Amino acid sequence: VSEPATPLSLSRTKSLPRRPAARPVDVRRHNLALVLQQVAAEGAISRAELAGVTRLTKGTVSTLVQELLRLGLLVELGTQPDGRVGRPRTVLALNGDGHCGIGLEINVDYIAVCVANLLHEVRFHRVDAIDNRSASLGRVLDRSARLVQAAVQAAAAEGLRPAGIAVAVPGTVDVPAGRLLVAPNLGWSDVRIVDELSVRLGAALPVLADNDANLGALGELWLGIGAESGDYIHVSGEIGIGAGVVVDGTLFRGSRGFAGEIGHVVVDPDGPPCSCGGRGCLERFAGQEAILAAAGLPTTSATTLGQVDTPLRELLALLGQRNRRAEAAVRSAANALGIGLADVVNVLDPDTIVLGGTYASLAPWLVDPLEDVLARQVIAAAWRPVKVAASALGPDAAVRGAAGWIVNRVLAEPGLRVAA
Amino acid sequence: VSEPATPLSLSRTKSLPRRPAARPVDVRRHNLALVLQQVAAEGAISRAELAGVTRLTKGTVSTLVQELLRLGLLVELGTQPDGRVGRPRTVLALNGDGHCGIGLEINVDYIAVCVANLLHEVRFHRVDAIDNRSASLGRVLDRSARLVQAAVQAAAAEGLRPAGIAVAVPGTVDVPAGRLLVAPNLGWSDVRIVDELSVRLGAALPVLADNDANLGALGELWLGIGAESGDYIHVSGEIGIGAGVVVDGTLFRGSRGFAGEIGHVVVDPDGPPCSCGGRGCLERFAGQEAILAAAGLPTTSATTLGQVDTPLRELLALLGQRNRRAEAAVRSAANALGIGLADVVNVLDPDTIVLGGTYASLAPWLVDPLEDVLARQVIAAAWRPVKVAASALGPDAAVRGAAGWIVNRVLAEPGLRVAA
Repeated sequence: VSEPATPLSLSRTKSLPRRPAARPVDVRRHNLALVLQQVAAEGAISRAELAGVTRLTKGTVSTLVQELLRLGLLVELGTQPDGRVGRPRTVLALNGDGHCGIGLEINVDYIAVCVANLLHEVRFHRVDAIDNRSASLGRVLDRSARLVQAAVQAAAAEGLRPAGIAVAVPGTVDVPAGRLLVAPNLGWSDVRIVDELSVRLGAALPVLADNDANLGALGELWLGIGAESGDYIHVSGEIGIGAGVVVDGTLFRGSRGFAGEIGHVVVDPDGPPCSCGGRGCLERFAGQEAILAAAGLPTTSATTLGQVDTPLRELLALLGQRNRRAEAAVRSAANALGIGLADVVNVLDPDTIVLGGTYASLAPWLVDPLEDVLARQVIAAAWRPVKVAASALGPDAAVRGAAGWIVNRVLAEPGLRVAA
Repeated sequence: VSEPATPLSLSRTKSLPRRPAARPVDVRRHNLALVLQQVAAEGAISRAELAGVTRLTKGTVSTLVQELLRLGLLVELGTQPDGRVGRPRTVLALNGDGHCGIGLEINVDYIAVCVANLLHEVRFHRVDAIDNRSASLGRVLDRSARLVQAAVQAAAAEGLRPAGIAVAVPGTVDVPAGRLLVAPNLGWSDVRIVDELSVRLGAALPVLADNDANLGALGELWLGIGAESGDYIHVSGEIGIGAGVVVDGTLFRGSRGFAGEIGHVVVDPDGPPCSCGGRGCLERFAGQEAILAAAGLPTTSATTLGQVDTPLRELLALLGQRNRRAEAAVRSAANALGIGLADVVNVLDPDTIVLGGTYASLAPWLVDPLEDVLARQVIAAAWRPVKVAASALGPDAAVRGAAGWIVNRVLAEPGLRVAA
C-alpha cells in the first residue's frame, strides 16, 4: 500500500483520480513481480528468505515461485548448505538462458545491436560504422532490420527467447505513439519508427522506441552509475549532445516526453545559428564535430564498415601526445559544456553528472575544467559540489539501455510480458 | 497496492528496498487519508458515494468517517434530497471552522502572514512592507514572530486550531534540517530558521521552512494553475528570481533540495558579476531591480510600513502610458527571461510557464516577447508550444502555499497530524 505523499497534490476544483482500495487480483500481480524482483536484486535466494524479506507467507511464496518457474523466468540452482543446522536450502535465481531483450541503436554515424538475457548479460553485440546521413531513410531502416534479424538468429542459436525489441534514435520521440518527431542531425522528421521496423521485421515481437539519450541514461541506471547514484544527468556527447535526467532512480521525461534537450541550451545568445533553428546552442561549441574542427581534425566519421570513431581515436592520440591545439579544443568545449551544465544543475540539483558517449573517453581532459566552471556557477556548490564521473558503459549505454528496457518490462510485469 | 513501475528501476549490484506486502495497520492509515482526501476533492459527498468511489465497504467507510468526525476534520452538513426515491443522503464536508495552517513569508522587502482553514480559505492575511536588508537578522525574526502571534490570536478568535506554521524564505533551504543555507539578496547565511522561530514563538506547534519559490509553486498547484496543469515551472520575479518546478502534480526538489535556482542560469557568459559569485546570471538582466533601473526608476522598495511595491506601481503606471523607456526595460527583461526559460524548457519539457510575483502584474507586457523567444529556442516548440500564463495568486503565492502546506499535511496524514 503506498502512503499518501506529503505535501499532498490536491486541487479542490477537480476530483482526485479514483484510487481504489487493494483487491486480491492486484495483490497477486504485485506480489508475483515483487518475488521476481527480489530474486533479481539478490542474485540467489531461497524460498524461506523470500518469505522473510517480502513478509509473504511461505505458502504464498511457494505458489508464486512455482508460477515463475513455469514461465521460464526462474531456475532452481539446486541445494546449497547454508552453514546452519537443518536442511540445506534450495536456491532460486533468474534464468539466464530463457527470455532476452534486443536493443537497437540507430545513430548518426553507426548502427548497433545487442542481445541481453534476464541478468542483463550481453550475449550478442555488433556495431556497424556507417554515416547514416549519406543514405536514405528507407535504406537505413532496411539495414537496421537486417542487424536485428542477425541478433534474433544469434539469440535463437543460444536458446534465448526474445521478449521484444527496443530502438534508440538520436531525436525527439513520442514514445506511446512509437513516432520519431525530429532527428536534426540525421535530417529526419516525422518517422513512424515502430511501424517501419515492425513491417520490416514481420515478427510478432513488440517494438518500442525512445530517444538515445534517455536509453543511455537508463542503461547507466541499470548497469553502471545506478549502483552508486539514482539522481544524475547522463550527458552524452556524440555528433549531437543529449541528456537523460534520472531522478530518484527514475527517468524524467517531461510533460510531452521531450525533456533532456541539453544540446540546445544557449551558451552564447550571439553565437552561431544551430540546425534546430536557434542560436548559440551548446552543440555548436561542445559537440563532437565542433571539438574535432577546433583540433584541426576531419569532422566526418568513418564510412568504412568496422572503423568506428576514427577521428575520435586521432583526437585521443593527439591528447596523449599533449598536442596544444587538441588540448585547447577540449578545454574550450569543457568550458561551454560547464556553462550549459551549470544552468541545468542550478535548476535540477542532481547528485552527479555522468559523462557518456564521446565524453566518456575524453573524461580525463574534461573533468577538471568542468568542475571549475560548476564550482563558480552553481549556487549550492559550496554546500555539496556536484560530482562529475565518466560513464561506465560509454558509447554502448544507449543500446544496452534499449535491451535492458525489454528485460526490465519482463521483470516488472512478468504475467503480462511472457507466456510459458 | 502500488503497481511496479515500468521501466523498472533495478540494479543488480544492490538490494531493492525491502518492500513489504500490505499489512492491516497500513491499510487503515491509507484508507483514513483516502476518505478524507476524497471528501476534500468532492467538496460534499455521502457515505454511500464514498464507498462507491473508494471501493471500500459501507461499514468500513462508516468507521473511518466516525474517526474523522471525532478528530474535528469533517462535519455533517445535514441531509439533502438527491432527487432519487428513498432516504435523503447525509452529506459530509471538510470542517472549515476546525484546524488551520499558518503561513509566513519573509522576503527581501516585505513580511507576510496568513491563516488558511482546511478548505484553503484565507481567514487572516497581513503584509508588512519593510526593507529587511536594513535590519539585523534578529530584528527581522522578532518582527516575523510577532506577526505569527497576531495570526495565531486571529485564528483563536475565530475558533480555529493551528496545526503548524510554515515559513517561506528567499534562499536555499535544507528542509529536513529546518536550515536556511543562504539568502544572497538578504545577505543571510546558515540560519537555523526553524529553531529561531520556534524559540521566539515558545509554542508546541510544529514549524517548517522552505524556499519561497517552492512554496509559491505549491500555492499555485493547490489553489491556482494546478486546476489546469500539473506540469509547469512557476517563475517568480522579485528582487531575486526563483522557480518552482512541478512535475506530474508534485514539486520537484532535486537531490539536495536545491532545485529551481533559475535566477542563476547564465544568460551571457561575458555579463556582469552576480552576488552568487557567478557571472551574467538571469537576475542581473530580469530581476526587479534590473527592470526598475533600466526604466529609470528608484530600485529600492518602500521602507514605510504599508506602502508595498511602490516602484513597481510606478512602473505599471508608466507602462499604462506607453512610456518607451519603461516598455524597452520590460522587453529587454523578457528577452533575457526567455533565453533562461528556453534552456529550462529544453531540459524539463514543462506544459506551462507560470509568471508569478512581480511578473504576474507585468504579464501583459511579458507574454508576447517571451513566447517569441521560446518558439525560436525550444527544440520541440513546433509540436506543442509551451504555454505562458500569469499566476492566479501573484505575490501571495508563497505565503498561501506555506499555509496550504500545513493544511495538506493534515489532509494527507490525519491520524499523525491532529488529535481530537
